[in-house]
Amino acid sequence: MTRRPRVVILGGGFGGLYAAKALGNAPVDVTVIDRTNHHLFQPLLYQVATAVLAPSDIMSPIRFLLRKQKNTAVLLAEAREVDLERRVLMVDDDQREIPYDFLIFATGARHSYFGRDDWERYAPGLKSIESAYEIRRRFLLAFEEAEKTEDAAERDAYLTFVIVGGGPTGVELAGMIPPVVKRGLRSDFRRIDTAHTQVILLEAGPRILPSLPESLSHAAHRSLEQLGVEVRTGSRVTELRPDAVSVGRECIQTRTVFWAAGNAASPLGRSLGVPLDSAGRVLVERDLSLPGHPEVFAVGDTAAFTQDGLLVPGVAPAAMQAGRAAARNIMRTVRGEPRTEFRYRDMGTLATIGRHKAVAEFGRLRLSGYLAWWLWLFVHILYLAGFRNRLSVLMEWAYSYVTYRHGARLITGSECCHSAESRAEARLCRTSNSPELGIASSRLERVKTNA
Amino acid sequence: MTRRPRVVILGGGFGGLYAAKALGNAPVDVTVIDRTNHHLFQPLLYQVATAVLAPSDIMSPIRFLLRKQKNTAVLLAEAREVDLERRVLMVDDDQREIPYDFLIFATGARHSYFGRDDWERYAPGLKSIESAYEIRRRFLLAFEEAEKTEDAAERDAYLTFVIVGGGPTGVELAGMIPPVVKRGLRSDFRRIDTAHTQVILLEAGPRILPSLPESLSHAAHRSLEQLGVEVRTGSRVTELRPDAVSVGRECIQTRTVFWAAGNAASPLGRSLGVPLDSAGRVLVERDLSLPGHPEVFAVGDTAAFTQDGLLVPGVAPAAMQAGRAAARNIMRTVRGEPRTEFRYRDMGTLATIGRHKAVAEFGRLRLSGYLAWWLWLFVHILYLAGFRNRLSVLMEWAYSYVTYRHGARLITGSECCHSAESRAEARLCRTSNSPELGIASSRLERVKTNA
Repeated sequence: MTRRPRVVILGGGFGGLYAAKALGNAPVDVTVIDRTNHHLFQPLLYQVATAVLAPSDIMSPIRFLLRKQKNTAVLLAEAREVDLERRVLMVDDDQREIPYDFLIFATGARHSYFGRDDWERYAPGLKSIESAYEIRRRFLLAFEEAEKTEDAAERDAYLTFVIVGGGPTGVELAGMIPPVVKRGLRSDFRRIDTAHTQVILLEAGPRILPSLPESLSHAAHRSLEQLGVEVRTGSRVTELRPDAVSVGRECIQTRTVFWAAGNAASPLGRSLGVPLDSAGRVLVERDLSLPGHPEVFAVGDTAAFTQDGLLVPGVAPAAMQAGRAAARNIMRTVRGEPRTEFRYRDMGTLATIGRHKAVAEFGRLRLSGYLAWWLWLFVHILYLAGFRNRLSVLMEWAYSYVTYRHGARLITGSECCHSAESRAEARLCRTSNSPELGIASSRLERVKTNA
Repeated sequence: MTRRPRVVILGGGFGGLYAAKALGNAPVDVTVIDRTNHHLFQPLLYQVATAVLAPSDIMSPIRFLLRKQKNTAVLLAEAREVDLERRVLMVDDDQREIPYDFLIFATGARHSYFGRDDWERYAPGLKSIESAYEIRRRFLLAFEEAEKTEDAAERDAYLTFVIVGGGPTGVELAGMIPPVVKRGLRSDFRRIDTAHTQVILLEAGPRILPSLPESLSHAAHRSLEQLGVEVRTGSRVTELRPDAVSVGRECIQTRTVFWAAGNAASPLGRSLGVPLDSAGRVLVERDLSLPGHPEVFAVGDTAAFTQDGLLVPGVAPAAMQAGRAAARNIMRTVRGEPRTEFRYRDMGTLATIGRHKAVAEFGRLRLSGYLAWWLWLFVHILYLAGFRNRLSVLMEWAYSYVTYRHGARLITGSECCHSAESRAEARLCRTSNSPELGIASSRLERVKTNA
């Protein structure tokens, strides 16, 4: 063909961004489409949610990251539908059509509430920058409300934080709360002692961090308990309300629940009409293309790729590798060469616990404690997209680790965006079995009827 | 009395914050009430709006700023009403009562749309951090839309920015746009040349910066024109629509209008039942107290204090001075000493124009150009509340002035928060007199009907 092939990349996360970068010098025209204007460094999102980092530290405009690639355009638009037969992508409300010769599908994942989507308003997940704002807002507002209330039981409920899901996100989020509240926030309040904050991590399975070897799970479990986090394994949430979490017959009085359990691929995948797995991920071929559509690829959390009998995990390094592999297969096809099979190289797993501990696995190397934390710091600084952010994050960390004075402790945004009206309509725990909880409930009742 | 007097300060802006600081060692119990958890350095808000600074650079949690004052509590709450007779303040929806012995009223101002409050959705003003987000969002989205459109007239409309009001805020906002778009954003886009952006500053009066001497007004006017800003004095907005601004019979096609004209005191003042001026400000006595209520003070933008026949201006230094003066008068009253009259000391006026020019007046000293800009930088760094922000802002400025790569160029938030649905329902300019505008309109029409 005389015209240069058009490659459309849907999504500016790790998969899409690294695919675009790999195509920077290729004889193709690249268009990156995302509904936001920024690439988000998701592995550090929990630090924004706990008011350690500022949002701009972990975001870079996609345009800025790709500004030197003359063959690449960036479009802020929301994809509505893919027409695989006509090879066009429909975007925005006006269904504008964007034709492609190759399409890379990298739309990521969101949290799965296992069929209880109504729980999302009570327990936001941590996927977008907006969700991090919302978690930070609820986290900080809980202390404001605790400081205000005259009722001891209500105060305790505001000082109880429940995190659902013991994967890396849940562990990192839970581990960050105790140091922030016990030191950072303590001098800010007069009537409450933030050191009395209770953090509960609920995991349905038998151990936290199930993707890591058992010894590291246990090391992480111990580290969390040393920080003061109550880790409850084998605890599946059965009901969620604005003022309580039920785990079987037990009921935890809390006003703040964060969700870090389960992933579901972005819903656009369903519109493709190709085979999906139970989490809505596209089942791709060995070269990452769609069955029957060699011109369309799916990478990252939105694709299901099995290797040696195991699903490639939904982590940033896997998305980067797949994005690059899809780009290379496009270049090979353009040159008339045969494609190669994708092979995921496990770069290891890392998770921080609190302020200066971590667990890490790199092949046979297993680390926990301080050394793992330094490794974690090094790897994250290394991979942070965009130089300015790297420097800024390092400085922000250095500053907040030394002083505990978190410059990011700001509540912004309004409730209208976040459907947090749930807080106002707080109802009572219907299944309180312990006597203390019964008392707590009746005290709450009184407060509510006064209101 | 045996119990310590209770001082309630309503508002954590410059007036309230400096009043609280002045009472830090006084034998009183201080409560600072604000509906947000942060103090905002309003004079730099326009730099957040133009994506030069990150929001956290100009905000500090009020709790953090007052954490060392053991006699001071901070309450996140919204005041609903003041009962001057019973000396209580009602807050939040549940009308909780907060009793006081002394009250300092420092609730600030918002923009006035001169009776056309419906214009606010088309032309947001710059008062809160949320409004700065919204202005930044509209500012950045305009280029995204311009990059997307196929229609030349629509593209020009998206690349036209109108700022209403030639006071310091309008001048600083208008002056910041050309450098950001001509250098900072230029390499980000493929289809549009951001250097073709048109910035129009509309001022109803005969000259911009009317509070400054005429020679400095003219210097600012010339500097803005050198930057490429079209300054139109004697231009009062007569109609505002999502796609156009009318000035008398003339019509400017634009999709982005920012409002920097007119102030109105916060509406709570009206509930006091005391004399107000036409802008809703409380007419205070010589000691800053309310007529007939020596225990209540009003300071900052919410108070009208006349000195030597002139109204004390609504600027940060005036609010700081009045806050401190009110606090001192409370301490004198507690000690049984007579009060003193407030006397505003004019510290001078400063306004930046673009990246490295400014105009300044300090008594008889009048400066314009580079020297004034260095002075501006020095003063703003000096007064920035909270050490971390000071350092961070300085670094951010240094970085962005050298590289033009603005780390804050992020579009966040959703339209639901900002009532920007106006954009979607863009209608046409009904009074287009010039032939070009007529063509532009019909082109737009076509685009709209296609949509």
